[in-house]
Parts: sequence; structure tokens; C-alpha cells
Amino acid sequence: MQLHETNAAPPDRRSGEDERLERAIDAALDCSQACGDCADACIADGLPASLRQCVRLALDCADLCEVTVSLAARRTGTNDEVTRQTLQACATACRRCADECAPHAEAHAHCRLCAEACRACAGACIEAVGTLRRR
Amino acid sequence: MQLHETNAAPPDRRSGEDERLERAIDAALDCSQACGDCADACIADGLPASLRQCVRLALDCADLCEVTVSLAARRTGTNDEVTRQTLQACATACRRCADECAPHAEAHAHCRLCAEACRACAGACIEAVGTLRRR
Amino acid sequence: MQLHETNAAPPDRRSGEDERLERAIDAALDCSQACGDCADACIADGLPASLRQCVRLALDCADLCEVTVSLAARRTGTNDEVTRQTLQACATACRRCADECAPHAEAHAHCRLCAEACRACAGACIEAVGTLRRR
Amino acid sequence: MQLHETNAAPPDRRSGEDERLERAIDAALDCSQACGDCADACIADGLPASLRQCVRLALDCADLCEVTVSLAARRTGTNDEVTRQTLQACATACRRCADECAPHAEAHAHCRLCAEACRACAGACIEAVGTLRRR
Repeated sequence: MQLHETNAAPPDRRSGEDERLERAIDAALDCSQACGDCADACIADGLPASLRQCVRLALDCADLCEVTVSLAARRTGTNDEVTRQTLQACATACRRCADECAPHAEAHAHCRLCAEACRACAGACIEAVGTLRRR
Repeated sequence: MQLHETNAAPPDRRSGEDERLERAIDAALDCSQACGDCADACIADGLPASLRQCVRLALDCADLCEVTVSLAARRTGTNDEVTRQTLQACATACRRCADECAPHAEAHAHCRLCAEACRACAGACIEAVGTLRRR
Repeated sequence: MQLHETNAAPPDRRSGEDERLERAIDAALDCSQACGDCADACIADGLPASLRQCVRLALDCADLCEVTVSLAARRTGTNDEVTRQTLQACATACRRCADECAPHAEAHAHCRLCAEACRACAGACIEAVGTLRRR
Repeated sequence: MQLHETNAAPPDRRSGEDERLERAIDAALDCSQACGDCADACIADGLPASLRQCVRLALDCADLCEVTVSLAARRTGTNDEVTRQTLQACATACRRCADECAPHAEAHAHCRLCAEACRACAGACIEAVGTLRRR
């Protein structure tokens, strides 16, 4: 993955703190894919009533993971408060989606994988929030 | 615009509150375009040093406006806390971008338009936050 | 809408041709919203079997409309061939989605609005393709 | 990566052909990140004149990679022509961006990584196009 090499370059990115931010980026990339796959599979399966809420929370979560990746990768030096609030919204979306998908984990592999990726991403986002200054 | 007509349809969207959410959607659509145009114009102009932070904040803001539109339009009934946090992050991004662009408003039309759209969107997002239940 | 005012600014955008490109941007913005609303409404309705393909084509179409807006608004002077191919893919996605939604137009307002927006967008994209040089 | 496990599930995805499509998804995910990193680094560096076109082509390319991932992962059975045209537009964007970044590869690590990811993605997209029926 190229992230680590190029992220070292820009002069106004702070090293040290960035490690946790990069873990959040990687987790959000994984989670975005898992949520998208879960939503697509729910729809392809004809969306049984039990999965109706699942697909919507997964789409919300995928959207927030993508914006988290964009902001955390762009790493605008003076925009820490925005990144912090975005990471928190992403973590909330991940937890909500995981809570919805987990009960379907045995019946649907895509729900199990989605719940796992969501929990990992929520944890990584909260870890990264701690590295950003509150303003 | 189709939004109003179709938004009335889904059974689990609450009317009344939705008016402010739809204003936030419209404002975020406008703001996303204005931020994208501002960033593009900054880059096309060769990005003078004075606009370097401007382009990055505008890209962050455009990303958050887009996810706000997606979530608010999807209007997942049980995901209000996520939508609420996203609207707040969007409002913060809008205010930061407006503060950066406003001083360049006389020199660059794209900065003036961007600052105006950002302030309008921040206001509409905060208005909409009030309609969503805290959980 | 801010587009017209700011689009005049960057020195390497060609005037004249840009009018049709801006109509494509406006049509793709409308279409992206209409497709997103249609997909959301299909899911909120519990996705009856008749609408299963509809939601997927609408999601594909919304994605292509969004990238069309980004590229056409960025209007990278030397990237005409990429913009041209993107406009064509967008037009194809719009036509496919319209063909799927139109038969449901009487039963579902969101399908009718989506089909209308798709046909308008397909037409505007094809018009705009003609303004871009083939390379 | 979760993709392979979940992609096996939906009944209307055709196996065999999907392997090349999944390689395209993986390559487009990598390329989207590399292009985003390159654009961000160009801007953070103050966008010297030599990199001005680079950042715009990288933003175009990142946008097309993202839509390619979405469509190829959704894999709408009856939408092959749209996916095919999107893969081709993505390959064109990748080649254009690689041609622009390659001359800066020695001076800027982010340009080198971007050019490499672009060439890999262009190749994977063209491979995947061959698996989709022309309609």
C-alpha cells in the first residue's frame, strides 16, 4: 500500500500521531468495501424484510467511511476539528451498522464480515480521534 | 427539483421535521458545487500561496456536503444520531471553509461564492440538527 | 446556481462549448438526486421483486452522474477524451435506468421522476459529448 | 480482504469471469488512493507549475477509480454495457494520469507511486473489459 510512503512527504503532516490516523484510513477502506458488499448482497438477495434496515445502515456507513478516508488522507493541517467530528460520526455509523448486522451473522456471511469490519473501523476511528487537537 | 415530491413517499419519513432537512440537502448540494468550483479554480489558477489552505478546506467541505446529502436524502429512520453528527461535522467544515475563503472574496469571485454557500449550508445544517432526536 | 459565474473564470476553459457541458452538469445533478431518491424509496418500500433490478440500475446511474459532474465541472483542459468517455458511460447508464423505471412509472412516483431525469440527462450528456475533441 | 468471500454469494454473479473483475476492483482501490495521495501532496507542496496538470488528472482519475469500484462491486447482472464503458473510461483516465506523472517520478515519490498504480489499474481494467458482454 502506497499510503505510508507518500504520507511521509507533505511538510505539514505531523509524524507519530499519523500512525493511528493511517490505521483508521485502512480500517475505513476495508469497512467501506464490506458495507458496500453487504448492501449489494442484501439487494441481490431480494432484500428480505429482516435485512431492510441492514442495507440502509450499511449504505450510510459506507458513505461515512469514504469521507473519513478522504479527509484523513488529505490531512489538512488546520482542519483537525472537522476531521475529529468526521471520525466520530464514522465510528457511530459503524457501531450502529454492526449492531444491525451482527444478529444476521450466522445466516449471511456478508453480514458477519460487515459487522466485523464495522467494529474494527469504529475502534480505529476512536483511537485516531485521540490524536487530533480539539479546537 | 424532484426531491420534495419523492421525499413525501417513503412511509417511515416523518413529515414536518423533513422540511428543515430538505433545506439542508438543497444547501449542501449548492455548497458542494461551490466548494468544488472554488477548489478547481484555485488549482487552475496555479494555486498562489494565499489560496493553498483554501483549496484543501474546500475539498474537505465538498466531501462532507456530499455525504450529508446522501444521508439526509436516504433518511434512515433509526439512524438519526449518525445523521445528526454528520450534519454537525458538515456545519463545522462549512464554517472553517467560509472563514478561509471570505478574506479572498474581493480578489476571487469563486472564493466569494464559496464563502456565501458555506455560510448558508452551515446555517441550514444546524437548523436541521434540531429536528433529529439525540440517542 | 454558482456554476455559471465561476466557470467563466479559469483561463483554460473554452467558452461557447461550455454551455452544453454546463447543461450536462445540471442534468446530471438532478439525475443523481432522482436516482438516489428512487433507490432509497425502493428500499424503504421493502424492495418488491419488481423493483429489485430498478434499485441496482439507479445506484449505478447515480454513481456515474456524480463522477460526470465532478469531471465536467473540473473541466481539465487536456483530459477531453476521459470526459467524453465518462459522458458516454453516463448516458448509457441513464438510458438503461430509464428503460427499467419507466414501466413502473404509474405505480411509483419515484420511478416516474427517475425515468424522466434519466432521459433528460442522457440527452444532455450526448449533446455535450459533441463539444469535446476526440483524441 | 473481504471481497472474495462475499462476492461469491449473490446468485446472479457469474463465477470465472469475476476473477478479473475483482483484480480490477483491487487495482482501482489502490489507484484511487495513490491518485488522492498524489493530488494532496501536490497541493500541500504548494503546487509548483510543473505539477498543475498532474493534480487535475489525478483528481479525475481518482473519481473514475471510485465509480469503477462501486459498479464492479455491485456487479449488476444486466448492466454489463455500463460497467464495460466505465472500465474503459477508467483505463483511459489512468493512462493519461500515468503519462503526466511519470516524468516527475524521480523528483516526487508520490508521482512515481501514482504512475505505477495508474498503469497497473489501466491494465486490470482492460483485462476485465474482456469478460463483459457487449450489448
